[in-house]
Amino acid sequence: MTDAPKEIETLIEMMAKLPGLGPRSARRAVLHLIKKRGVLMTPLADTMHTVAATARECLNCANISVADICPICAAEKRSNGEICVVEDVADLWAMERAGVFKGRYHVLGGTLSALDAIGPADLRIPKLIDRVETENITEVILALNATIDGQTTAHYIADQLEHRVSVTSLAQGVPIGGELDYLDDGTITAALKARKKV
Amino acid sequence: MTDAPKEIETLIEMMAKLPGLGPRSARRAVLHLIKKRGVLMTPLADTMHTVAATARECLNCANISVADICPICAAEKRSNGEICVVEDVADLWAMERAGVFKGRYHVLGGTLSALDAIGPADLRIPKLIDRVETENITEVILALNATIDGQTTAHYIADQLEHRVSVTSLAQGVPIGGELDYLDDGTITAALKARKKV
Repeated sequence: MTDAPKEIETLIEMMAKLPGLGPRSARRAVLHLIKKRGVLMTPLADTMHTVAATARECLNCANISVADICPICAAEKRSNGEICVVEDVADLWAMERAGVFKGRYHVLGGTLSALDAIGPADLRIPKLIDRVETENITEVILALNATIDGQTTAHYIADQLEHRVSVTSLAQGVPIGGELDYLDDGTITAALKARKKV
Repeated sequence: MTDAPKEIETLIEMMAKLPGLGPRSARRAVLHLIKKRGVLMTPLADTMHTVAATARECLNCANISVADICPICAAEKRSNGEICVVEDVADLWAMERAGVFKGRYHVLGGTLSALDAIGPADLRIPKLIDRVETENITEVILALNATIDGQTTAHYIADQLEHRVSVTSLAQGVPIGGELDYLDDGTITAALKARKKV
């Protein structure tokens, strides 16, 4: 609650719904926007309208772009034989920032979760199986988060696909720049089990 | 950098300019907005346009509202004799949330700062002196932040006004719910100096 007029109050409430922003940071953000209303708030609102009108999920992989088939699925240069399975578009962007994977993606839209009653049919797993069968795929790389739900989902997908295609997952171990003293036991255990000859 | 289309990239860059949001949280916020483009992004853009078109600074106190004279300056019920001086509109909102002050405000728009070369003329100090002389003010309450720049500004204003009007400032001491063990030395010193009979 502030003493601000109703429109500004509404704007603060909407901004507070964004992930990472609470009521206090939403107030700060809105004050900043108001101070820069000419150079920031109006262009930001315009861009939001543009994106809201044009952004859509790729019909093939569920990546977000402004076309029915996203640039990654449409790129002829990218290898057709490999699909990297991620939970969310944010994970796809993270993979692309690393710039090392040259295949295509499949965004599940979440993970299996007993608690939230999310089953295989609620995710894009049937579409993944369909793609494996129709796109001449040789390898499915599971890049799911190293959480319990992420790993459960990885096991489920591996079960479904391993008789059709090679299924791999990202290596687990010590992150680059990581210090052992700050790592959790699970990571150290995984890194030790997967140790390799230098 | 993401692999997202240009419009989405632009939106992320704009969002990352908001206080409290960095590139990573801006990406998360934009993905959330795209997923909820119908129910959140479009209404948010509309509200931003409305606020950008209507919000303005009060000509008297620099509070932000949708009128040339803000509701607080316009309210006949509020005491005319007291002015509470704050650095920023966010501080005015914080005072109003406490709901205890019934006078009017004056937003300086910052603090004096030798480092940033901000002098009295860059703040709304001349307007404050003008208001003290014309609005029949009996008390100026300095509610500036307890930072070095805030306190320098408070001393400067007190020097300018003390021969015309009573100048007070917020008490310093132990915050309600505060534990001594977690307080800095300066706060404990201030609280001890200002101790009072129980």
